[in-house]
Amino acid sequence: MSFIQNLQAAWASNNSLLCVGLDPDLAKFPAHLREDPDAIYQFCTAIVDATADLVCAFKPQIAYFAGESAEAQLEALIDYIHLNYPHVPVILDAKRGDIGATAAQYAREAFERYQADALTVNPYMGFDSIEPYLAYPDCGLIVLCRTSNPGGSDLQNLQVDGGKKLYQHVAQVVAEKWNPHGQAALVVGATFPQELADVRSLVGDMPLLVPGIGAQGGDVQATVNAGKTAIGMGLMINSSRAILYTGKGEDFAQAARKAALSTRDEINRYR
Amino acid sequence: MSFIQNLQAAWASNNSLLCVGLDPDLAKFPAHLREDPDAIYQFCTAIVDATADLVCAFKPQIAYFAGESAEAQLEALIDYIHLNYPHVPVILDAKRGDIGATAAQYAREAFERYQADALTVNPYMGFDSIEPYLAYPDCGLIVLCRTSNPGGSDLQNLQVDGGKKLYQHVAQVVAEKWNPHGQAALVVGATFPQELADVRSLVGDMPLLVPGIGAQGGDVQATVNAGKTAIGMGLMINSSRAILYTGKGEDFAQAARKAALSTRDEINRYR
Repeated sequence: MSFIQNLQAAWASNNSLLCVGLDPDLAKFPAHLREDPDAIYQFCTAIVDATADLVCAFKPQIAYFAGESAEAQLEALIDYIHLNYPHVPVILDAKRGDIGATAAQYAREAFERYQADALTVNPYMGFDSIEPYLAYPDCGLIVLCRTSNPGGSDLQNLQVDGGKKLYQHVAQVVAEKWNPHGQAALVVGATFPQELADVRSLVGDMPLLVPGIGAQGGDVQATVNAGKTAIGMGLMINSSRAILYTGKGEDFAQAARKAALSTRDEINRYR
Repeated sequence: MSFIQNLQAAWASNNSLLCVGLDPDLAKFPAHLREDPDAIYQFCTAIVDATADLVCAFKPQIAYFAGESAEAQLEALIDYIHLNYPHVPVILDAKRGDIGATAAQYAREAFERYQADALTVNPYMGFDSIEPYLAYPDCGLIVLCRTSNPGGSDLQNLQVDGGKKLYQHVAQVVAEKWNPHGQAALVVGATFPQELADVRSLVGDMPLLVPGIGAQGGDVQATVNAGKTAIGMGLMINSSRAILYTGKGEDFAQAARKAALSTRDEINRYR
């Protein structure tokens, strides 16, 4: 089953457009876990167990693992999700972008070593930096388009040839040229709903990964209205910190479940 | 000593603008090394020993290590270079680009875990994706500007606000706003010498990391003429495959030395 099919099945079976981002920051972990040598794995699998029936995807952010030399825990975490929750796809958030020969190595890392179902990538280096991932047509390729951070406007909002903005150009190029096998999706932040609506109008039913609600302040109602497809699908609305670190004690996973449930339900009210 | 000072010292002491890229591709290794469990470390340290007096920097490409689960060998390799050749700076080529909290993790990975002297980064997400690296003012921050690959033109050559091209805008923004501690450099490919000259005219004496000679076909004379500063410095001209894989047998390191020597000397003829 391809990433896109898996995602569609998870949207339906879990009745959810919520993606939980797994950004394991040791400094924010409950105290009882911090001394555990496998703390990252313990923390993340507890979050996964508590939320797997409420999400359409999990999104581990590789930087948090790499900063802690925890590649083995990332491998074990993704194995754990596939084994226990095979209906929930895993997006490796790594924002890779490099020339063809190097991109082929990053594709091996993401799809063979880590067995991720999808990978985030950066479009700045152009089509041949994307092409090696197309050799894995069942895997999702989620291209940065309009990001939710304050600096996202610095380049992405520049006017380019023909009066479009750079992020609109990226959305069009991905939809029209970089997606021969239908495996592409885009990252579009929740902090600018009008831009999310722009992108939706340019790319048909292509899935959009939407960071920026929760800790980053994006409005759920405006996000869902701007980004959903005609049938109320098409979104992976990511929340990381606001789910992971709601609870500070031994009940952190139950607290995360509560936060995930209320976020999922809030999203569903506006679909 | 900062990355930039270290680089300037290496330019002078080794009389070299050559950067050797360490892209360890097992399929291209000499047969006698392939079965060694530490093949990547053995191969790269042999190349380092054979060329350390001929280069201004070494540039390991992290994708080749990550694809082989060889993070420990990358750590050991960088340790080895620092211990044996402390005058030669190490650039970790990882092209990172993410929001601030995540970029802070990538900075820890590059500068604390791997002890790299400099890191390549992607500008697409704007200033706050760059800012966390500024907390390490002695480390170099090498921002993608105009890349040497065929798709490099797809976005980087778009006309943006005011008639500039996107890569020219990036060069200006980095020079004027993103470099408060003087730690920035830019990646500008050798395949378009006129664009290299453009960037040089925009950024003063800022160091430029220049891939694209050798296997990618860039012309050495045109590259040096277009990119050098007034005093014949300012460049880290990278060659990877054309140095690493010249020899196919047990004498691969001597063959690499020969290729590095002739490339360094060819560069020096045009300074």
